[in-house]
Amino acid sequence: MPQTPPVPQDVLDLVQGAQRILLTGHVRPDGDCIGAQAALAQLLAKLGKEVVILNPDPPEPVFDYLGELVEYHAYEGGDVPAHDLLMLLDISELGRCGDLAEPLRLAPAKKLVVDHHVHHGAEWWDAALVDNTASATGVLVYRLAAALGLELDAGIAAGLFTSLVTDTGWFKYSNTDAETLRIASDLVEHGVKPHELFGAIFQRHPASLPHELGELLARMEYHADDRLAVLTTSGPSDDLGGGSDMLLDILRAVDAVEVVLFLRHTGDGRAKLSARSKRDFDVNALARRFGGGGHIKASGATLEGPFEDAHQALVAAALEELESQLATGGPAE
Amino acid sequence: MPQTPPVPQDVLDLVQGAQRILLTGHVRPDGDCIGAQAALAQLLAKLGKEVVILNPDPPEPVFDYLGELVEYHAYEGGDVPAHDLLMLLDISELGRCGDLAEPLRLAPAKKLVVDHHVHHGAEWWDAALVDNTASATGVLVYRLAAALGLELDAGIAAGLFTSLVTDTGWFKYSNTDAETLRIASDLVEHGVKPHELFGAIFQRHPASLPHELGELLARMEYHADDRLAVLTTSGPSDDLGGGSDMLLDILRAVDAVEVVLFLRHTGDGRAKLSARSKRDFDVNALARRFGGGGHIKASGATLEGPFEDAHQALVAAALEELESQLATGGPAE
Repeated sequence: MPQTPPVPQDVLDLVQGAQRILLTGHVRPDGDCIGAQAALAQLLAKLGKEVVILNPDPPEPVFDYLGELVEYHAYEGGDVPAHDLLMLLDISELGRCGDLAEPLRLAPAKKLVVDHHVHHGAEWWDAALVDNTASATGVLVYRLAAALGLELDAGIAAGLFTSLVTDTGWFKYSNTDAETLRIASDLVEHGVKPHELFGAIFQRHPASLPHELGELLARMEYHADDRLAVLTTSGPSDDLGGGSDMLLDILRAVDAVEVVLFLRHTGDGRAKLSARSKRDFDVNALARRFGGGGHIKASGATLEGPFEDAHQALVAAALEELESQLATGGPAE
Repeated sequence: MPQTPPVPQDVLDLVQGAQRILLTGHVRPDGDCIGAQAALAQLLAKLGKEVVILNPDPPEPVFDYLGELVEYHAYEGGDVPAHDLLMLLDISELGRCGDLAEPLRLAPAKKLVVDHHVHHGAEWWDAALVDNTASATGVLVYRLAAALGLELDAGIAAGLFTSLVTDTGWFKYSNTDAETLRIASDLVEHGVKPHELFGAIFQRHPASLPHELGELLARMEYHADDRLAVLTTSGPSDDLGGGSDMLLDILRAVDAVEVVLFLRHTGDGRAKLSARSKRDFDVNALARRFGGGGHIKASGATLEGPFEDAHQALVAAALEELESQLATGGPAE
């Protein structure tokens, strides 16, 4: 079994030395961010700390079972709560905290980063628990709990399991490593029921979902010998929420498909792109052509309208990128 | 950590004492059966045994990556290979071996059952490694490997991981316990790449899948305040394979839905039902009304035609069953 990287001593010192701890995360916090915060807040409470969770935005409603364990505050302007230590979860740049960034920067507290993303730029923090090989921020919180000698319980485990499954696509993505599954096992020992959490997170869709997905799938078009699958909405429509992921998953389940593009009407005349790659195709390179970005396998962008022009420009760019990446083994420059 | 149940000594004695070992499984062997056989065949080869895998039917094509590790034979009549020990995987009744049942019964070899299903009737075997709390037969093979002191390798791990993920719905079903995840972690340590196996098993669909699913979803109908979702085909069509599961998963993802019914034309004028329950509704009780059966959460049946009559009878029975089960907390008698 490979050694887990140790938690730096200055991280432990900062946590142990602080009394009032503020937890924050990025704008539109996802399951990893929210779940890691739920776990950490409960762990710190065991140490007798006063903990407040304050994010730029509230959690999505699917995570309301975590809201029964801890209190999530969404910043609405004004002063931030007095604190000795700020802990940033799933984020290493204050700039991604939206309107919260400036008041947090100005607060006289120490800053501690807990994150698994690649950090660009200077190390501006006081201490950091950063490991970009970790599948989720929840993994880092689990390591921190162990280093602090804290016992898990069912509530803490629910937060950590939420982190793990949302950032690994329920153990399907390439970041699913042995440590992730070993921790998941331990969380089940501590009371997590995987099927109940699956239901809570992924089986909460409105009754309109099947017909909406059916209509979109019927409109799906293939290009480049079925390697490129493109979905478009027929007009402005409700956000599908997690339904978008189900749609993209269905298209990725086709053997020949390498790239999936989902372009939807924004309502203000523009077009919003979600792009996914199944294997080696770099969708980040494609999204960057339209001023967007993300990761190699998952990226997004917003395209100027009219919608049909955006659609055509997107397909043309994707075909060019497909051909170029196949020829060079890398993104077109 | 709870203790893993020990492997009975008579099981170990039988395995160690045999030289020519025949592995078999049930008709239409699934991923758990096939994966457990792949792992066990490789483990026994490490002990110097001569191993043959002989099933009533060949594996599904999605498992061809296991066919590169071990050889699967499908019975075509005649004599079975000479053997000292027969090991039945994922099955405790010879009767479920189809045409293989009788020749296997007549062979003078010892019989050893490795299974996680509930067994009804007499214990007819010479020895058994049976635990119906195990999530998959692969879990039992893993325990056997440990009891025999055998090291895993990447090929063995691929077989076991296949078992685990196919029988737990990729760690989503209620049988996903701490042991399953702990074993999965160990298998990743031994070289399994979860995302590659996911692609191999679940992302092999034909290009026609999205449009087929789209058409079916567009025809979906709700009953009983959206608690019952019913899908029907418009005529005889190709088997969707794993696509059926994707369809049923989409309908189960709707918050209000309790029961999902998928009724398709068989091609010979009848109608084939797949029924799934999300929470407590007993679809086995519904399937039994039409001469079918299965489990509480997943059952099937074949209904006499004409198709539209079958459809109406099914919906009427499901509504009756829904009302009755809600009233009594159990299936209608």
